[in-house]
Amino acid sequence: MTVADILSKLSQQVISCRPEDTIETIATILSAKRIGAMPVRDLEGAMIGIVSERDIVDAFAERGSEVGALRVRDIMTEEVISCGPEDTIAHASQLLHKHRFRHLPVLENGRIVGVLSIRDLLESRLEQTELEVNVLKDSVIAARFG
Amino acid sequence: MTVADILSKLSQQVISCRPEDTIETIATILSAKRIGAMPVRDLEGAMIGIVSERDIVDAFAERGSEVGALRVRDIMTEEVISCGPEDTIAHASQLLHKHRFRHLPVLENGRIVGVLSIRDLLESRLEQTELEVNVLKDSVIAARFG
Repeated sequence: MTVADILSKLSQQVISCRPEDTIETIATILSAKRIGAMPVRDLEGAMIGIVSERDIVDAFAERGSEVGALRVRDIMTEEVISCGPEDTIAHASQLLHKHRFRHLPVLENGRIVGVLSIRDLLESRLEQTELEVNVLKDSVIAARFG
Repeated sequence: MTVADILSKLSQQVISCRPEDTIETIATILSAKRIGAMPVRDLEGAMIGIVSERDIVDAFAERGSEVGALRVRDIMTEEVISCGPEDTIAHASQLLHKHRFRHLPVLENGRIVGVLSIRDLLESRLEQTELEVNVLKDSVIAARFG
């Protein structure tokens, strides 16, 4: 199973923001779209970072109510780990685990085509493994009584 | 596998806050402890709500920089769904799914003994299902060549 398989199931619309957006603007987008993170793009559309709910909470913890004056560029994570649509779910999961991130942007020819969360990946892996259990149970029955 | 099995693996320390805490205070705790939510307790120690990263972001979206003046009681979720240590992981997962929550407090004799996230539950279910796959694979081999 590949990253592309999950993306096609989720049928995500890619929502992104700009480095000069305010924290209030991105809180409004994350809140309205019920998403935990989104890519940050420059004027040419290139991804230059990712910003998450966690970044907002961390900024609040560090700066208190001054956080209202900050911009996305002040709190975003610039070193973004990404994957491609043809990567396996296992590989994508390892990347998130290794780098301790909760969201993984998917890039295809330099263009963002989606963002996967740890939850998306875990749900897909669980679904796949449960399917495998059912197939194996059938095999056990077939081997015994076939 | 039960909720108690996951809790014993996670060896969580239960962190909670008070309804009169400021948003800055709880942002600092959530950020420092790397947790997404925590129970809100009254002076007698009874759980009266739960507050999460998401609640902070939603409050920011609605109130902008005024959020600094809010207290936990203004943004917490009061109708908390909880489970017990003896509940199965499947039941706990269904509760979160049904009520669209991301965190589930665990109560034992009215006392909070932990908080499980969707991620904790998915990781446990995946681990359990992968184990089942291995057992079944052995059974298939045994049935064919035994």
